[in-house]
Amino acid sequence: MTATVNFPSREEILGAADRIRPYIHRTPVITSETINRICGAELFFKCENLQKAGAFKVRGATNAVMSLPGEDIKRGVATHSSGNHAAALSMAARNRGIRAYIVMPGNSSKVKIAAVQSYGGEITFCEPTLAAREETLNQVLAQTFATEIHPYNDLRIIAGQATAALELIEDAGNLDYIITPVGGGGLLSGTALSASYFGKGIKVIAGEPSGADDAYQSFYKGELVPSVNPDTIADGLRTSLGSLTFPIIRKFVTDIHTVSDFNIAEAMKLVWERMKLIIEPSAATPLAALLKNKTRYAGKRIGIILTGGNVDLNKLPWQ
Amino acid sequence: MTATVNFPSREEILGAADRIRPYIHRTPVITSETINRICGAELFFKCENLQKAGAFKVRGATNAVMSLPGEDIKRGVATHSSGNHAAALSMAARNRGIRAYIVMPGNSSKVKIAAVQSYGGEITFCEPTLAAREETLNQVLAQTFATEIHPYNDLRIIAGQATAALELIEDAGNLDYIITPVGGGGLLSGTALSASYFGKGIKVIAGEPSGADDAYQSFYKGELVPSVNPDTIADGLRTSLGSLTFPIIRKFVTDIHTVSDFNIAEAMKLVWERMKLIIEPSAATPLAALLKNKTRYAGKRIGIILTGGNVDLNKLPWQ
Repeated sequence: MTATVNFPSREEILGAADRIRPYIHRTPVITSETINRICGAELFFKCENLQKAGAFKVRGATNAVMSLPGEDIKRGVATHSSGNHAAALSMAARNRGIRAYIVMPGNSSKVKIAAVQSYGGEITFCEPTLAAREETLNQVLAQTFATEIHPYNDLRIIAGQATAALELIEDAGNLDYIITPVGGGGLLSGTALSASYFGKGIKVIAGEPSGADDAYQSFYKGELVPSVNPDTIADGLRTSLGSLTFPIIRKFVTDIHTVSDFNIAEAMKLVWERMKLIIEPSAATPLAALLKNKTRYAGKRIGIILTGGNVDLNKLPWQ
Repeated sequence: MTATVNFPSREEILGAADRIRPYIHRTPVITSETINRICGAELFFKCENLQKAGAFKVRGATNAVMSLPGEDIKRGVATHSSGNHAAALSMAARNRGIRAYIVMPGNSSKVKIAAVQSYGGEITFCEPTLAAREETLNQVLAQTFATEIHPYNDLRIIAGQATAALELIEDAGNLDYIITPVGGGGLLSGTALSASYFGKGIKVIAGEPSGADDAYQSFYKGELVPSVNPDTIADGLRTSLGSLTFPIIRKFVTDIHTVSDFNIAEAMKLVWERMKLIIEPSAATPLAALLKNKTRYAGKRIGIILTGGNVDLNKLPWQ
């Protein structure tokens, strides 16, 4: 039996980069001698925590919203999300001049609710279960005829997220590895595609919280194993791989490392203290994976995507 | 009576930029739509919090250490400092392969002591008074024959600090204003010189904590008024203007605004939340000054130097 893998082409990723350029920051790539010394490798941090709306998610959301025909999305776009995709989609919709309907669990953080509202997203609250989120979104879609934009299981989203690695390779030069976090797999699959199109032998690795290790399990079992009751401080990584992202990851990703919440909090504090960058727990997962597997990566040139910086400053994991 | 003002020339600042380039980061200039909207102006943040050793101070210290003849400083360099100059001088000395003797008050923050040690600085602790600091430094100088490098009252330090504004103007294009904090005045005087040499009509403004407003008082009284019992969370700004920095500031700076510690903490939190950048209280002072004087700066293109990010993550002003 052969399975066909659908994935964005080189040209589709370059097209996404052109399409979203007016709406995003070209985020800096930053180095730290101290962290290089600690890791025994040469690291290049792509600072998507400094991206608009505080996370890489605005890349995919903008690519999706800007590439859909006006006729298709004139009634607006919709999604369910407790996190960065919600704010990113609201911002992209505002830039296109259409409405964004966001279904959010009632227990979402105040910071993230405020972010969605500040970009003009129209929120419908629901119970904090996947069933309630999907049911509420279906009601919203039925009432508004808006177009659903999934946070990761969408080829336009994947092509958009792929542009972060494209810029990283342009700015840092060729790398031995790129490490990203993995939640639903949009960034990881896009990064793996960009590494294969725009790099020379770059291997792509993921860091994943051990309390939400569905990607690790799926990768090694060879079939989708959904996340059950994920438990991690990395709130952006509790989702499960999708039917589109998983095949790309199987084909193009080299390895997935799991890390504990303790590892994540430690790596997060290291970046705050030594790089003066505010990153959220999810964004610290790749560095945590590297610190846990130093020997393997000794002496290598490694790109790390700092995925986001949306964190409640009154609830830090070391307090 | 005429007073001669000594200040670094255009060529000396360009020379400093060339001299320190191999040892420092070219820090990014970052913008934030949200903060632009809040201020009603177009802001360009020069991120010296992302500089090596976490502050702009490494510019001046490196220029001084690298420009002094080897014969003069073969026995090392020395200073008294509880803060960023101590770490910066230690780093610069290590890069030159000489010793750095640092006199620090015993109550200096653990983070700053650890930073000095990590760069190989040799610390002598003293009582937390200016008299004890100066006396202890004199003892160290007598024992070691090291060369004293003052944190700001030194033309090579001023020329080094001036390179931050030079880069800011190169990256942001011409500006209407540049705002910096003022403590001893090394950065402020250097910035004012760079604005006059490399800009077109750029006015330079300082923000100063009202609990340590010696620069404001000196500026308007027309003579040096030293800081007496300064009381502010902006620990980098408790020092008084120097005999070299004050005349440059009188001649080249347009205005000084004072702000309360409450204003400073508010501006600091705004940068953490919206820009995902860790800045220390001193670095928030210019934005606090801008927020307090919005009308005056409405619609202008304004450069702000985020001077440093060395802050104890367990003691934040909003906790």
